[in-house]
Amino acid sequence: MQKQNYKKSSKAVVLLSGGVDSATCLARAVEAFGKRNVFALIAWYGQRHKREIESARKLSEFYDVESAEVDLTEVFGLSSCSLLEKNNVDVENGDYADQIKRAGGKPVATYVPFRNGLFLSAAASLALSVGADTIVYGAHMDDAAGNAYPDCSEDFVEKMNAAVAAGTGGQVRVWAPYVHSNKAKIVADGLRLRVPYEVTWSCYKGGARACGKCGTCIDRLKAFKANGAVDPIEYEEQR
Amino acid sequence: MQKQNYKKSSKAVVLLSGGVDSATCLARAVEAFGKRNVFALIAWYGQRHKREIESARKLSEFYDVESAEVDLTEVFGLSSCSLLEKNNVDVENGDYADQIKRAGGKPVATYVPFRNGLFLSAAASLALSVGADTIVYGAHMDDAAGNAYPDCSEDFVEKMNAAVAAGTGGQVRVWAPYVHSNKAKIVADGLRLRVPYEVTWSCYKGGARACGKCGTCIDRLKAFKANGAVDPIEYEEQR
Repeated sequence: MQKQNYKKSSKAVVLLSGGVDSATCLARAVEAFGKRNVFALIAWYGQRHKREIESARKLSEFYDVESAEVDLTEVFGLSSCSLLEKNNVDVENGDYADQIKRAGGKPVATYVPFRNGLFLSAAASLALSVGADTIVYGAHMDDAAGNAYPDCSEDFVEKMNAAVAAGTGGQVRVWAPYVHSNKAKIVADGLRLRVPYEVTWSCYKGGARACGKCGTCIDRLKAFKANGAVDPIEYEEQR
Repeated sequence: MQKQNYKKSSKAVVLLSGGVDSATCLARAVEAFGKRNVFALIAWYGQRHKREIESARKLSEFYDVESAEVDLTEVFGLSSCSLLEKNNVDVENGDYADQIKRAGGKPVATYVPFRNGLFLSAAASLALSVGADTIVYGAHMDDAAGNAYPDCSEDFVEKMNAAVAAGTGGQVRVWAPYVHSNKAKIVADGLRLRVPYEVTWSCYKGGARACGKCGTCIDRLKAFKANGAVDPIEYEEQR
């Protein structure tokens, strides 16, 4: 599935969070399908800050694609995940390797329960409503490592693709263009595609500038460095 | 998966719509897990009437289980499905065989796009939040026939089970106890379990009494007849 060429007539729904991975997916989808055939889905889930939603909106404006926002916050009403605003818990600092070690093989504290499965299902519903046959999803190898985020793994993407295909009567598929890539490769592709990374937001904290210390800031900075590039957003500090 | 015996320590989230199938699933889950280990999930999706929600609430009270309601209506904001209140379209009369013929191998007009996939994903999120390891889902053979509702098929249940297992890091499974049964067999099991069918609601229309003419009324009446039983709810007319 990952390598097929899409017919010009096909249409895609992109899961757009406002971070590096989904911004690159949006650019990749516009390249593959044309902007008139791309629809961005922006989901609220009770995240700690609205910075990433604002980034997602700016990205869909930049690429001039249709978009829709859905609020799925209620689903996580009973979750104790540290990434949810209502829980008012500090997000752990340090890179993912540390977090994975602490989690002992279980999903990390910032794993929002089956969030990406829920988003993909909402995208499948939307795809059928707008006549799209493809969902574009920014899962990648770094997030899947060590079972940190099981809903980012290649295994999950394959199985969710099969479930979406079966449950839509074969009308919709999941395409994760970077499922075999790490974040550095995503940034490499994004630099080729001239993604406006200055409007993206990744930090788990919602400060005026990115913290530079949480897992996702560290990952992002590393990915730009690996490409000999400078991350265009501002940081409180950079390790 | 379908035949395994559950440990007394395990816990289930039941998708509860308020109809015959999910009411019987709730009874079956209470039998298998004990009422303290059952959690009912009641979902709003923009349905045409609130009768089924009221039935779901009464059923969770009757069985004295914990419950939660989530509103997923926004996800279907762009859908033209006839089952959604906002679209104000007449639901077709006649049995499913007619509808399937009209749909020509595609999902029928009352298929809400990937609704059950979305519900199962929400249930997976909730299961992780409340420490449950099983989702109980009332899919059955009649609804899956002729591709009418692809998100009720055995194929879909198997694939969604695999996706939920992968995306939760092996913590949650989908159990569809009636996936190999037709509605008549569900009612047979429900009669054994003394399900209070008088408080259930199946009709696609929201009248004071069930219409007796829509696909789901016809199916329900047939299922009781096949068991030599009388459906305890009132109908406008019975064919």
